Amino acid sequence: MNNFTHSIPTKVYFGKGQIKHLAELKESGSKVLLVYGGGSIKKNGLYNKVYSILRTAGLRIYELPGVEPNPRIESVREGVKICKDNKVNMVLAVGGGSVIDAAKVIAGGALYGGDPWSLVIHPRYILKALPIYTVLTLAATGSEMDSFAVISDLSKHEKWGTGSPLFKPVMSICDPEYTFSVSPKQTAAGTADIMSHTFENYFTNVEGGYLQARFCEGVLKTCIKYGPIAIAEPDNYDARANLMWASSNAINGLLSDGAEVAWCVHPMEHELSAYYDITHGEGLAILTPHWMEFALNEGTAAKFAEYGRNVWGIAGEDDMEVAKAAIERTREFFVNELHIPATLREVGIEDEKYFEEMAAKAAEGSKGSFVPLEKDDIVAIYRAAL
Amino acid sequence: MNNFTHSIPTKVYFGKGQIKHLAELKESGSKVLLVYGGGSIKKNGLYNKVYSILRTAGLRIYELPGVEPNPRIESVREGVKICKDNKVNMVLAVGGGSVIDAAKVIAGGALYGGDPWSLVIHPRYILKALPIYTVLTLAATGSEMDSFAVISDLSKHEKWGTGSPLFKPVMSICDPEYTFSVSPKQTAAGTADIMSHTFENYFTNVEGGYLQARFCEGVLKTCIKYGPIAIAEPDNYDARANLMWASSNAINGLLSDGAEVAWCVHPMEHELSAYYDITHGEGLAILTPHWMEFALNEGTAAKFAEYGRNVWGIAGEDDMEVAKAAIERTREFFVNELHIPATLREVGIEDEKYFEEMAAKAAEGSKGSFVPLEKDDIVAIYRAAL
Repeated sequence: MNNFTHSIPTKVYFGKGQIKHLAELKESGSKVLLVYGGGSIKKNGLYNKVYSILRTAGLRIYELPGVEPNPRIESVREGVKICKDNKVNMVLAVGGGSVIDAAKVIAGGALYGGDPWSLVIHPRYILKALPIYTVLTLAATGSEMDSFAVISDLSKHEKWGTGSPLFKPVMSICDPEYTFSVSPKQTAAGTADIMSHTFENYFTNVEGGYLQARFCEGVLKTCIKYGPIAIAEPDNYDARANLMWASSNAINGLLSDGAEVAWCVHPMEHELSAYYDITHGEGLAILTPHWMEFALNEGTAAKFAEYGRNVWGIAGEDDMEVAKAAIERTREFFVNELHIPATLREVGIEDEKYFEEMAAKAAEGSKGSFVPLEKDDIVAIYRAAL
Repeated sequence: MNNFTHSIPTKVYFGKGQIKHLAELKESGSKVLLVYGGGSIKKNGLYNKVYSILRTAGLRIYELPGVEPNPRIESVREGVKICKDNKVNMVLAVGGGSVIDAAKVIAGGALYGGDPWSLVIHPRYILKALPIYTVLTLAATGSEMDSFAVISDLSKHEKWGTGSPLFKPVMSICDPEYTFSVSPKQTAAGTADIMSHTFENYFTNVEGGYLQARFCEGVLKTCIKYGPIAIAEPDNYDARANLMWASSNAINGLLSDGAEVAWCVHPMEHELSAYYDITHGEGLAILTPHWMEFALNEGTAAKFAEYGRNVWGIAGEDDMEVAKAAIERTREFFVNELHIPATLREVGIEDEKYFEEMAAKAAEGSKGSFVPLEKDDIVAIYRAAL
């Protein structure tokens, strides 16, 4: 097991009716920037509830609506400007990972002299940030409890992850009921995202992270059990609750601390989203089985077999056979049970035009991952997924 | 799944050489009370290392040595007096759960007007506490990351748990190497304690805590794998590291949040320790299989069978049969693999003299547990364990 520092400062209020705790925001000052997305929170009444609690607590509210899926640096710049112009004290994200990620970089940008894109490219420039609060409406990225943010500059086909301990939210309200209205497509993509975060930690070559591996298997089993239930019964509370709590724990350090390697499927997918603006979780689900097939070899078969036996309950003595069966079950799960497209073509990527360019960047971003990935390997994975 | 508030403010520095972070104590002031136990830290050099880092950081050190296993209120009172007399700013526990528990109540008592025993009996009286730091030397209670403390007044045969969010340590140094010198007996008792904390959370009648149950199974598997290894190879780093990290996660809220019931084997054991001063983890291991046999019925067989299948890999369709096999495996593990005595007689409890008296208190302390426990049920469990 590696050395690690474990720090989860975020206080999570989990469950029905926890929104009332938003009144605690007044501990951070009197002016809040409310960041949200395309307006679904106006339709379902959450916006009015948030607004009313904040106003009753005596807070002055500034708003940044319209944050995109794959959030863009332009929105971040707009939020930063509002914060600076009005000396805002804190940022409240109401939404999914995209909204929270934008809010984080806004919180950093508000106390930074230069352009916030620098904070995306150079995480070490993040030296201060406004306090960040979240109300979660989608179980997926785990941004409600972690230090990361992913921001795109689509004008340059760039999508990068950044992060800082200062980006860990002070408080997150996680009410599974707010995810009842999430569509089957987004529920599936979110489930695939949680699973991918877990795979990125589970497939490690650090030895001795036994407990972490068992925790990973717990998160994977939870996604496998409850993803399809949440799709079939959108208002099944326990399904939504388990997915939501899995999303937070998949990426808050619990699974990675002591057994960290560099991620690889995420960097590959970030290029797909940067060039084609596809849904992140769908890209991950499409790439994952192909990455697994690439990564499977005599040296890694035991780890994939461990996955097959402990997560899927696949019997058998031969590691390679169990490993292959596990990869096939993973593919079938994404396609047949989560109903996610199996190929890049199905999400609108028709040709190989940018594969070399994308693979070069992804190879850079995945250095030090479970199995080494060269540019050509990634091109081959993209092709296999086409 | 129940509503919950998840809050783990403790920063954990885990691994080799993390002791250097003790220099950060100066952030809490200039005077520290150093609390420790029977002097093993003087023999193994840890005392000197701690002393030197604190002095180099400019801290003035006051000392409370000699804290007992099953720590006593007399030691707490002594620590409180030192803090009050010298206006100490923080408390540093270097030891296992007993030392940390004493340090916690000292930290509360230092800022409390009355006798610290009141803080043990009435947790609601804990309104302030000095910052608490720990250096862990035994994987067992999880006190390094939780809000609880258990203190005894042996003059009254009283042993009670108390707790407050203020008792969560600011920082804990968890270096598995400091547990290399822990004896086989204490390693076994610590492993049984971790498992018992996990059972207390796993056997819940709250529905929908699926992820929490999988995390419990991960902790149990870790204890089952590494407990015997740590006994056979005391300086096996990965064994010590996995047990240490399991101990913290068994009780910091991860396993219980959303699925909490009252504990029951712990209250029964606390009476044994209060009357006979036996080793806590041994008492738990002796009682647990008997409690499981008492708790097993048509209504609970499915849960015990889940335990048998997921933790022990026991095959079989019939829940009751799998459940019985799982209980038997648990008993065998404690006795044959951890080498813990199987009966109360073997730890010096020769007769039933206090069983009624003890059972009455334990029944009070376990109200609301997985299966209801009346006084007579507990007497029967004590008798079966005799």
